[in-house]
Amino acid sequence: MCRFLAYSGESIFLEDLVCKPRHSLVRQSLQAAEAKAVTNGDGFGIGWYGERETPGVYREVMPAWSDDNLLALCANVRSHLFMAHVRAATGGGVSRLNCHPFTLGRFLFIHNGQVGDFARVRRRLEAQLPDELYDERRGSTDSELLFLLIMARVRAGAAVEDAICQVLHDTADEMEDRGVTTPLRFSAALADGEQLWAVRWASDHKPPSLYLKPQRGGWAIASEPLGDDAQAWTAIERGQLVHVRGTEIDQREIC
Amino acid sequence: MCRFLAYSGESIFLEDLVCKPRHSLVRQSLQAAEAKAVTNGDGFGIGWYGERETPGVYREVMPAWSDDNLLALCANVRSHLFMAHVRAATGGGVSRLNCHPFTLGRFLFIHNGQVGDFARVRRRLEAQLPDELYDERRGSTDSELLFLLIMARVRAGAAVEDAICQVLHDTADEMEDRGVTTPLRFSAALADGEQLWAVRWASDHKPPSLYLKPQRGGWAIASEPLGDDAQAWTAIERGQLVHVRGTEIDQREIC
Amino acid sequence: MCRFLAYSGESIFLEDLVCKPRHSLVRQSLQAAEAKAVTNGDGFGIGWYGERETPGVYREVMPAWSDDNLLALCANVRSHLFMAHVRAATGGGVSRLNCHPFTLGRFLFIHNGQVGDFARVRRRLEAQLPDELYDERRGSTDSELLFLLIMARVRAGAAVEDAICQVLHDTADEMEDRGVTTPLRFSAALADGEQLWAVRWASDHKPPSLYLKPQRGGWAIASEPLGDDAQAWTAIERGQLVHVRGTEIDQREIC
Amino acid sequence: MCRFLAYSGESIFLEDLVCKPRHSLVRQSLQAAEAKAVTNGDGFGIGWYGERETPGVYREVMPAWSDDNLLALCANVRSHLFMAHVRAATGGGVSRLNCHPFTLGRFLFIHNGQVGDFARVRRRLEAQLPDELYDERRGSTDSELLFLLIMARVRAGAAVEDAICQVLHDTADEMEDRGVTTPLRFSAALADGEQLWAVRWASDHKPPSLYLKPQRGGWAIASEPLGDDAQAWTAIERGQLVHVRGTEIDQREIC
Repeated sequence: MCRFLAYSGESIFLEDLVCKPRHSLVRQSLQAAEAKAVTNGDGFGIGWYGERETPGVYREVMPAWSDDNLLALCANVRSHLFMAHVRAATGGGVSRLNCHPFTLGRFLFIHNGQVGDFARVRRRLEAQLPDELYDERRGSTDSELLFLLIMARVRAGAAVEDAICQVLHDTADEMEDRGVTTPLRFSAALADGEQLWAVRWASDHKPPSLYLKPQRGGWAIASEPLGDDAQAWTAIERGQLVHVRGTEIDQREIC
Repeated sequence: MCRFLAYSGESIFLEDLVCKPRHSLVRQSLQAAEAKAVTNGDGFGIGWYGERETPGVYREVMPAWSDDNLLALCANVRSHLFMAHVRAATGGGVSRLNCHPFTLGRFLFIHNGQVGDFARVRRRLEAQLPDELYDERRGSTDSELLFLLIMARVRAGAAVEDAICQVLHDTADEMEDRGVTTPLRFSAALADGEQLWAVRWASDHKPPSLYLKPQRGGWAIASEPLGDDAQAWTAIERGQLVHVRGTEIDQREIC
Repeated sequence: MCRFLAYSGESIFLEDLVCKPRHSLVRQSLQAAEAKAVTNGDGFGIGWYGERETPGVYREVMPAWSDDNLLALCANVRSHLFMAHVRAATGGGVSRLNCHPFTLGRFLFIHNGQVGDFARVRRRLEAQLPDELYDERRGSTDSELLFLLIMARVRAGAAVEDAICQVLHDTADEMEDRGVTTPLRFSAALADGEQLWAVRWASDHKPPSLYLKPQRGGWAIASEPLGDDAQAWTAIERGQLVHVRGTEIDQREIC
Repeated sequence: MCRFLAYSGESIFLEDLVCKPRHSLVRQSLQAAEAKAVTNGDGFGIGWYGERETPGVYREVMPAWSDDNLLALCANVRSHLFMAHVRAATGGGVSRLNCHPFTLGRFLFIHNGQVGDFARVRRRLEAQLPDELYDERRGSTDSELLFLLIMARVRAGAAVEDAICQVLHDTADEMEDRGVTTPLRFSAALADGEQLWAVRWASDHKPPSLYLKPQRGGWAIASEPLGDDAQAWTAIERGQLVHVRGTEIDQREIC
């Protein structure tokens, strides 16, 4: 279990969401409220879009709460579209290669959840990757693999929303085939530099928490409310997709 | 606030105390029971005596719970006298230079506590160091400084016990001189390769917790009981010093 | 011995100087041409000014050549005034706290050189720091100390140029007093968000190399030429100060 | 290209080979003499056998030359059978997961060389892994994969020597099938707690250098001579295997 946030809207300093709120993501790295793991200290990462097509990324294995670089970066980098993630490792060692966000070309991806009993299906899922994405695999997490599987479908021409939906169902099928009974859980965000997609889904009835809030000039999405303003955050329902383009938002069932 | 343990007795694998107990130090790094800070993830260190006069030391800025090196080391290194520490930083950045144990020649030192309002007395305390120890200062913590002040007195001929006592009183005096009202707290262990000293002291009535337990063939000292055997651990009283040489133990008031 | 660069002028991506040139600073971390130490792999750092008064800083103990974060940051961060440094440790352990640039308020500082026989004068030099800067000391390098000594004079009202000059002479005097015969060498850059000062100085005849080049829309200063354009770089003479404000430049003897 | 050493014989302190010789492995991390890459600063690792069946392992992403932990460990750990490796990354990011030695059960493995054009054959080679070893893959290097492929054959009952030989030929065949013309190069050492195997092989005429020397009470194998005693080291010929059990040695052609 991990904690994350994503933002799309007017350009703001990353610190406004990552560091400054009373229950900021940096604070959640030390003490999350709604996560199975209270401590999310197994590395972290931020990704943001600026003037370039490909995003800036900073990932580190230290806990977010003790990293001075993170504070300095978030105080000085501004973005209209960014995400941040603090990790509680469930599988895959503590390594920058296993830290979120994962990136490929202009895409960024963060995930909270799991492929249940991943060791039993990892091989079959990796076999689904086309050659050129197989070579992009750097770490050993289920999260990175789900991202690459989604990217494979997007590159093959699928809409992002359909790609996510297909990967979730294919993965759940593969798990069932192999007799895996622990669930597939997927609260995640994906961005391409202009658009942001966030999904809350699970093969059982317990998808990881995900909240939405209108942020001055945009939208914030987070694993749990960031401030004292819990009432300003709306829980995204299980099976819902949120799609943000600039400040425009659309919310619907995904699959 | 930090958590630590120390051991003197028959040679055992470090993992028997550091990693394996149900409430081991590695476990306490993620979730301590009796500390002000639940999470002690700001680096850690181990120090042990083997065949050499100077101890082996391994210090790292990552949390103890996620460090594979620590597990492998503790499973393969055996010692008759060792200590381990997990840190919750109160001052001084997260850096190996600020991780315990501190070492000088054949001595090892770990500390849990604080010099209250350290910034206000740091300069005067550092001024007390003789030249050759001034140059040994690597980090910026109060703990390392207390260690060097003790070493200065030991090198000048004082018995370890007296050196500790003098430094505690001199430091408390310095704090009072500067009008510092936050307390001096000092639960610590010091070793020289043959002997182990552990002290629980504070200028107020709240010294950090410290426990003692006969371990098969020796003695274990720890910030909190390591296993389900809480009743086997005796709380060391405020103002007490425990002195262990091999398997022999002596406990008395320090000052 | 270390390698560094600084830039003032039109806003450019950091990668244009830090990563992309054939003999970029990242390349120099692995193989410098004019340094005593070929390898500058003991950590690195970048500092830049954006929209805030205080600069962004990223410092890391890994070699610059292997750090993916550095590449991603430099490709996405733009600045009108920035500096970067790769370290070959001569004293002070490899720690983020000992990596350049050092920062205080709106100031950034990088240094290549040494206080000869630093251990013998460290104590006296630290004693010159006013209380509030004494508490800002985080690491144990001579470079950080020279920076704080300069800051002390600037805070006391001295012009930056005079402050540097005074600190160089006072330090050289202190060294002479203590019978130190190894030289004081100081190639360094200092910035305050609007202005950049670079100095090449030594108490002997061998100040570390320093070059100047008009960069499209500004000025680049570096320990050695960054590209195949060696002829475009002018060596800054021993004892010279370069002062850049925006794109305007002034060069004169310092002291 | 990397540098490594291995030792089997009477129990000695690791520092006697890793740190102390004039041209020790730690020294080679900064400046190797016979390697394509002068600098081997992309992480390092040591592995040793003590009283346990499974070896102790310490791997770190920092350069070996600047790691105080390494010095302290090597000064205090003694072993009759150990290996050490400094890395110059050719593929696979700088991560502990990509540092040598790799370990599985009681086996340790270090490698200097490459699978030419690895990206083109990685997928097919990974497909050869049996399920239980597929799940043991942690990083993304060719070296780790060669190790797991050898382990697969050993677990299936092959002698270590035959397993290595088969993997080399199968891999070379796979490379040829895919039209890879860059060579397969393999200087490596493998140990199981009692025996040590070292091999120097290449599909072309340029296997990475490997030397052998009788060490007081045992045998040392290294990428290049460790001291001023170059004449005491014998070059292992291309295609040769060295097999050491305790102090007994056997050398023959491998395949």
